[in-house]
Amino acid sequence: MKCELVFVGTELLLGDILNTNAQYLSKKLAALGFDVLFQCVVGDNPERLKEVLKEGLERSDIIITTGGLGPTKDDLTKEVCASMFSLPLEMHEESLKRVHDYFKAKNAPMPKSNEKQALMPRGAVVFKNDNGTAPGCAIEKDGKHIIILPGPPREMHMMFENGALPYLKKYSTHVIISHSVRTFGIGESLMAEKAGELLDMQNPTVAPYAKSGEALLRVTAKAETEEEAEKLIAPVIGEIKNRLGSLVYGIDRGSMEEAVVALLKEKKLTLATAESCTGGLIAKRITDIPGASDIFGCGIVSYSNEIKHSVLGVQNELLEKYGAVSEAVAASMALGAKKASGADVAVSVTGIAGPASDNTNKPVGLVYIAVTDGENFRIKKLLTGHAEKGCRDYNRTVSASVALNEVRLFILEKESNKKDIESFIKSF
Amino acid sequence: MKCELVFVGTELLLGDILNTNAQYLSKKLAALGFDVLFQCVVGDNPERLKEVLKEGLERSDIIITTGGLGPTKDDLTKEVCASMFSLPLEMHEESLKRVHDYFKAKNAPMPKSNEKQALMPRGAVVFKNDNGTAPGCAIEKDGKHIIILPGPPREMHMMFENGALPYLKKYSTHVIISHSVRTFGIGESLMAEKAGELLDMQNPTVAPYAKSGEALLRVTAKAETEEEAEKLIAPVIGEIKNRLGSLVYGIDRGSMEEAVVALLKEKKLTLATAESCTGGLIAKRITDIPGASDIFGCGIVSYSNEIKHSVLGVQNELLEKYGAVSEAVAASMALGAKKASGADVAVSVTGIAGPASDNTNKPVGLVYIAVTDGENFRIKKLLTGHAEKGCRDYNRTVSASVALNEVRLFILEKESNKKDIESFIKSF
Repeated sequence: MKCELVFVGTELLLGDILNTNAQYLSKKLAALGFDVLFQCVVGDNPERLKEVLKEGLERSDIIITTGGLGPTKDDLTKEVCASMFSLPLEMHEESLKRVHDYFKAKNAPMPKSNEKQALMPRGAVVFKNDNGTAPGCAIEKDGKHIIILPGPPREMHMMFENGALPYLKKYSTHVIISHSVRTFGIGESLMAEKAGELLDMQNPTVAPYAKSGEALLRVTAKAETEEEAEKLIAPVIGEIKNRLGSLVYGIDRGSMEEAVVALLKEKKLTLATAESCTGGLIAKRITDIPGASDIFGCGIVSYSNEIKHSVLGVQNELLEKYGAVSEAVAASMALGAKKASGADVAVSVTGIAGPASDNTNKPVGLVYIAVTDGENFRIKKLLTGHAEKGCRDYNRTVSASVALNEVRLFILEKESNKKDIESFIKSF
Repeated sequence: MKCELVFVGTELLLGDILNTNAQYLSKKLAALGFDVLFQCVVGDNPERLKEVLKEGLERSDIIITTGGLGPTKDDLTKEVCASMFSLPLEMHEESLKRVHDYFKAKNAPMPKSNEKQALMPRGAVVFKNDNGTAPGCAIEKDGKHIIILPGPPREMHMMFENGALPYLKKYSTHVIISHSVRTFGIGESLMAEKAGELLDMQNPTVAPYAKSGEALLRVTAKAETEEEAEKLIAPVIGEIKNRLGSLVYGIDRGSMEEAVVALLKEKKLTLATAESCTGGLIAKRITDIPGASDIFGCGIVSYSNEIKHSVLGVQNELLEKYGAVSEAVAASMALGAKKASGADVAVSVTGIAGPASDNTNKPVGLVYIAVTDGENFRIKKLLTGHAEKGCRDYNRTVSASVALNEVRLFILEKESNKKDIESFIKSF
């Protein structure tokens, strides 16, 4: 099926809002095996909308609109779409009741103008709105379809999933399913090299991508049903995992923090953090995950040397001799967090996020990370290579990701963490 | 001038990338006083691109394209645009040298295919690319203009600023300038009420907006020059500040953390944080700001009761009697952070971010915030009202924002923070 997307809203033409609906719907339609030929944005202008719909209906089988379903006079998407198929608007009683109920639940009086939102083109398949007042719908004539959805993403996503998607699935002859194998600590080209001849497969296809310091392999299959597609994909993901080993930290959306929290829970271990340049970002990312309290109780942000000493017990001699950004201080910070918290494992980060360096000649982007269980440890020196204007965010994000990954590897590769920390600290 | 935007790229139609260029360019053109009538996305397909350009040139004065300037056979934007004005492509020697230099700087061999990027329509005004290999250009015929820009935002933004913007300014008869007055702690409707008759002004206009828990007033003026526009805006912003007082925390982009860091620097005060439900987010936001080390040395994430007691010195009796999410524990946490850090001011947050509640009958979204200088304090009880699926992010973000705002108000409204904390803690 050929599709076009029409986004209605002067606020989009003025740049007041970012059009995330475009990406959302394009992805969903690609997964249904539909071809999206055009995306178009028009203002709240019935003449221009008519023009766009007319052209679209000549070229394509399905048009999806978002926006212009509000209660004001400007909001005319439904009216214009109905007129394309010469359909009158009629009051849809169930929708009217929903609009009334929506206001009742908020204990607010319903403005008369909201009634208009319950008007529907005759014969439309109506989609209810669980997150707002504007229902959506699908209308059809001579094999051409117009799907009318609200503009606010919260409302549109839910309505698409529950209403439009089941409607569209009937017209889908095949599905396209993708899974992403997410890796950490390997560049895109080296990852691609390890994937080797898998990249030449036809169904599923395997394609490498790089994204904010991570590399991933996307495995995409085309099949008649979801199950068939998953069956094609599973062995390929298995083979990729074989080849990449612990470089793979998750499949699909799982963020690094999700992977680490899940691993700690599985191993029944608790974690503490001691952060300097990341300034709380690691703790924040861990506690982004619901249920993090099972494995996380204590984080220390020791942004100044005084706090590194007074709260984490880092010896002033180490700070003076090696500077705050050093292997010795990272190790000592981790040990201090472990002691202060009583956690099983502690991770520390100290580095120079930029834009300015500290008062040493160390480069912006130099970061030391230490992980310890009080006996063994793992130390990582990171040079992000980023010192340009605006590097601060990048350096902090990457440092936090690498630190989380080091925790993961510390736990997974216990055998290789055999150094005795007391003698290590003494060696400085 | 009437404008249209044409974005070229199959990756946009597949939903692989979010089209941020649309918002960027729309904003820039609105500021020039141009009307953007349409935005359109087409794939790497010369026939469809031709169709879109033909229609656009009939309706509008200026078309801006992004994308399709790469070195591969698929990349045909320049070729198709030139054909619309019957212009041949010619090698642009200066651009060719730049492409060669780009690869030389990377110490990489230049693929032959990249030479194509230096081909330009005859008579074009060429825009150099400081962040990539593809130059852009502007071509004109019979008063109609096509501006051709690369797709990657990093390349496009800089080329727009340095090349396309000066070119377009010649056709701008007026400018439109906006400033946002950002408030915190007041709803959109109450803010609008206080703005009163200012909302009826014609030039500048004053319009209320709500955005992620904050309300803002956008003041927009139209004038012949930027200075004139600024002159129209300044007194209106002054009047809004008069009416809203300390509810206003910044003008334009300044985030709440930027406002707080600036205020602390101005008053030469240092801050410490003690976070439970926000889990490091406040410390993270403070240290997002370069130079935060001047005012921030210590943050404690006391996610468990044990750490609230052992690191922050919260009495176990308070935790048992009132629970971790209570006014008493918030006050005690702030006092503990103040003592552990030696900072001038400390802020604490303890609450239930969700999705699950703690093992009390307190509701998800209940948060206590305390600010203290060791003598006086300010306590805030917050009920976000959000307990739905996915509320966690919202509750944490809002809690952190309110906490930062409380620090701001604690400093600005010192006179109203007169309660003695020791007797307050004893009162529990």
